[in-house]
This record gives sequence, structure tokens and C-alpha cells, in this order.
Amino acid sequence: MNPSWIAVDWGTTNFRAFLMSDGGECLDRIDQAKGLLSVPQAQFPAVFDLLISRWNDSYGDLPVIMAGMVGSQQGWREVPYVQAPASVQDLANNTYSVELLSGHKAKIVSGVSCINQFGNPEVMRGEEIQLIGLNEIIKEDFQAILFGTHSKNAHWINGNIDSYSTVMTGELYSVLVNHSILGKSLPTQEFNKDAFIKGVDIGHQYPLNHVLFSARTFKLFNQVSEHYIHAYISGLLIGHEFFISNWLGKLYLVGSQKLASNYAIALDYLNIDFDVIDGDECFLKGMTKIYNSGENDEY
Amino acid sequence: MNPSWIAVDWGTTNFRAFLMSDGGECLDRIDQAKGLLSVPQAQFPAVFDLLISRWNDSYGDLPVIMAGMVGSQQGWREVPYVQAPASVQDLANNTYSVELLSGHKAKIVSGVSCINQFGNPEVMRGEEIQLIGLNEIIKEDFQAILFGTHSKNAHWINGNIDSYSTVMTGELYSVLVNHSILGKSLPTQEFNKDAFIKGVDIGHQYPLNHVLFSARTFKLFNQVSEHYIHAYISGLLIGHEFFISNWLGKLYLVGSQKLASNYAIALDYLNIDFDVIDGDECFLKGMTKIYNSGENDEY
Repeated sequence: MNPSWIAVDWGTTNFRAFLMSDGGECLDRIDQAKGLLSVPQAQFPAVFDLLISRWNDSYGDLPVIMAGMVGSQQGWREVPYVQAPASVQDLANNTYSVELLSGHKAKIVSGVSCINQFGNPEVMRGEEIQLIGLNEIIKEDFQAILFGTHSKNAHWINGNIDSYSTVMTGELYSVLVNHSILGKSLPTQEFNKDAFIKGVDIGHQYPLNHVLFSARTFKLFNQVSEHYIHAYISGLLIGHEFFISNWLGKLYLVGSQKLASNYAIALDYLNIDFDVIDGDECFLKGMTKIYNSGENDEY
Repeated sequence: MNPSWIAVDWGTTNFRAFLMSDGGECLDRIDQAKGLLSVPQAQFPAVFDLLISRWNDSYGDLPVIMAGMVGSQQGWREVPYVQAPASVQDLANNTYSVELLSGHKAKIVSGVSCINQFGNPEVMRGEEIQLIGLNEIIKEDFQAILFGTHSKNAHWINGNIDSYSTVMTGELYSVLVNHSILGKSLPTQEFNKDAFIKGVDIGHQYPLNHVLFSARTFKLFNQVSEHYIHAYISGLLIGHEFFISNWLGKLYLVGSQKLASNYAIALDYLNIDFDVIDGDECFLKGMTKIYNSGENDEY
């Protein structure tokens, strides 16, 4: 199969590029810890050229399509958000060009904004691609959690990203275990399923800040081993994502396999039907769909 | 009035001692940023002697009664918790001695533990004194929030500290503004009442982690000025304390005047009847009550 285009996910801390065939097959990939926060605005063309030079050398200039934080204020070029409900065509019609070192143009896909169920504004950059990819895989309406630092709880209805909300589970976990009293003076941590489930059980029933301190008192009273406090906190936070049960029917979990196993334990415990779909697969299926829906002669 | 005893609140970051008359009047105080975490266990007698040397020089050895984290594992001596419901007499009967440099004994008052409304264990050291003091002031059953790093929401019923729960408002605020994306890249912050109330309004209605990210998106969309983000986050967190409305009738707020004004704005907005009582006043009234209820000849 011949390489015919390049899909890029350029985030704040990592650069990931995928060499794609016309049919949407990934032939090669480049992963570098070269997040866009480390790139001065004027140097994006040169840095990008360097990052994918091995493909340039072998295949010449291929069309490039990018998504993620590369389209944010801190990125290569700030591109606006498309307001949800947003379809594939809305996104394919709203790409913005940047000039590569070769003089060719690359496209950056817009992010998606919405007003969530609480009436607050929401933004995503990159996850909209995964949602499109997930729809390519399951070909019907769905509800999904794209979990990570900032999890997105999303609904796809009638061919559109309908609405979503953000839950800061990953980041809250990180600040609590690294910077709060809950994470202080702990020995080496191990994952423990019972401790995790104890957290899920409490976290999904009660308001978060009213039960967080239990991570300390359960340790004091030896009701959770001091080796399992991280697992317990993870359970509390993931459980809290399901404090609101606005999930009917099957729930799709999109993300890395590692974290997915925690969510899987929580959802089993909470009797919520789910399927785990790989995040990279969704991203590439989504980028392929956008690529094939756009005006490719513009590159 | 003659000084006749000394009340001490020795916490993890601060040392505070009060020179008391028999009638419970505070005649002098010593405040030092000499938290017990900085004192090796064996050096407590010497450090204490140094801290209050000016009173020793003037008045000789006075009875000393201490409360707070000084009775914890990291303190001078670990003293057990009294289980709630706990009365003044329960606490006065459960003090533990440590030996001062002079050879005289000082007393440390026990903390109080309980099982909260969510079925989780709770611990307090120091706040039980303030609750006793508050009861001395208002002389009836009450519900109170002792706000701070870890706020205690407490009920006093029939002469007992009946139950309480911990809400980590102060610490969550600190880790979110200092260590999360919500606090990143902000200009100088000012308090703004409208931004604060916007936070209270959202925080008291919705589960915390599902609305936290709004501190970022409201800024992105200029719906909260970037100068008021800390005020908005404070509102979200204080509002979230009232997500559960288990307050009937008047609520007493115990703590510093500075933070009390934020709570006052929130409670006005939420139409909750309240009174603010100074935290130091409660502490000294509580220590006086314990001092007068104990066997003073044991000192």
C-alpha cells in the first residue's frame, strides 16, 4: 500500500504523526515528546519538517491534516470552534491552513464548543475526531466517555456531536495525590480492586468534596491499606463521574487500554453496559473520514 | 486580673498560646510560626519552654492545657480520639499528660472521632474545643461550619458534639489555583462579588467535578474576567458545601473574619440564616470550659 497522506495529533506535551494509506490504513507512526508548548510560534514549520523528515525523504510532500491543541491559542494557528451540534461535514468544511516549510499547505481541523447540560460553555480540540471515528466504527447514535486528564462525556445523535461535558478526573487525581494531604506520607502504591471499588461505591453516591477526606480517615483507621490510597482516590473520582446517571443503554469508553481497565471495573460494579474502543483507532478513523470528506485538492 | 493558666493551640504550622485569668479572660497571647512539624519529638519540652519563656519569667509555672494537632501522631504525644456523641465532661475526663521542662505536667485534650452521615470515619483535633466554646456562647443546640483548610460541618445536640463531616474546601481551593490548569496563566487576581456568586450558584446545584472546568471555559469566552477566576473557583467550592442542604434554621459560621465574609455572601445568596462567631473566641471559651471541668490539681 502506498502512503498518501499524514494525520497529526499535536498536543501540549506530545507530537504524534501517522502515515496513512488512501484506504485509511496506518503504515507508520512517529511519536515524539515534542509538545507544542515547547515550540515558538514562528518555528512551527521548521520543527514540523524536522519531526517528519524521514517520511519527507522517502515519500516527498504528502497532504497533512492536523487536529488537537495545535489549533489553539498556544498552537501553530488559532482556529475557531464549530458550535455543536456538529456533523462530519461541518468539521470538514471548517479547516484552516498553515504553510509548511515546503510551501505546501497543511490543514488544521476546528475544535467543537457547546453549552453543556448545566448551562456552561465547553470546548474540545481533538476529541471531536475520536467521536467521528467512533461513529465510523459503530455506525449509530452513541454515548461515550473519552477519558483522560479532562474526560469528555459525549452524546452523538442523528449524525452530530450533539453535546458533551468535561469532567476533570485525571487532573484532579493528579493534583490530589501529588499536592494534597491525601497523598502525603504514603508508601509505595499498588492497585487494589477492593479499595478501588470502595471508592467507586462512595464516589458515585455522594457529593465529591463531602467524601474526599475519607481517603485520609480510612487510612488512619486501617480500613483502606496505606498501600492502596491512590486506588481508593481513583475509585472515588471515577465513581463521581457516575454521580449523575444520564447514561441509558450501552456506554462506549474511548482511551488507552491501561486506564480503560479501571473504568471497566467501575462500570461492572455499577451495572452499566459498556464497550471499550481504542482511542488511537477512533482518532485515525475520524481523521480518515474528515480527510475523505474535505476538498483534498486544496492541500 | 492575675494570670492563672495557659491555653495552647499548637498546630502543624503555627503555635498560639493564650495567658488566661481564672475567669476566662485572655490577658496576653504569643503567636509564633513554629508549627509542630518543625519540632523533633524529644525537643517538645525545650521548645515549648522557650516559646512561653516571657510568661515563665514573669509568673512562674502556670497550669497548661493544650489542644489541636499537638495530640496527633506528629505531635508531642499521640492521644486517642473520644468517639462522638461527646460531651464537655467526656473531653475533660480524657486529657493526657506530658512533662514540661520544669517537671510539671501539661494536659493535652483528646480529639473527637465519629462516623459521618455517609458512613465514613471522621477525625478532628482542636475544632471540638471551638464547638464547646460556641455552645458556651449560644447555650443551645446548634449547627455550625468551622471553615478553613478542612471545614467541619457539625451538629451539637443535647449537650454533645453529635456528629460532623469534613469538607476539604480550603485545601481544594489551594491545589486547584496553584497546581491545576484552572489556575494557570492568570493575571493578578481580585475578589469580585458577581464572579463569586456565579460560582456559588453553579457549585451548590451541580456535582463539583462536572462543573469545575467552567472556571476555564468562562474565562475563554470572557464570561468571567480573567482577574476574577480565583473568586469564581472559591464560589464554586463554597457553593458545593451547600450542595447537600442538611441545614435547618440558623447556621453558625466559626472562623476568621476574612474568610467569613465570603461565606456570608454565599449564605445571603442562598437564603440561609446565619451568624458569624469569631474562631478564637470559641477556642478560648471552650478551653476555659474544659479547664474548669477538669481535675485541676493534677497539673
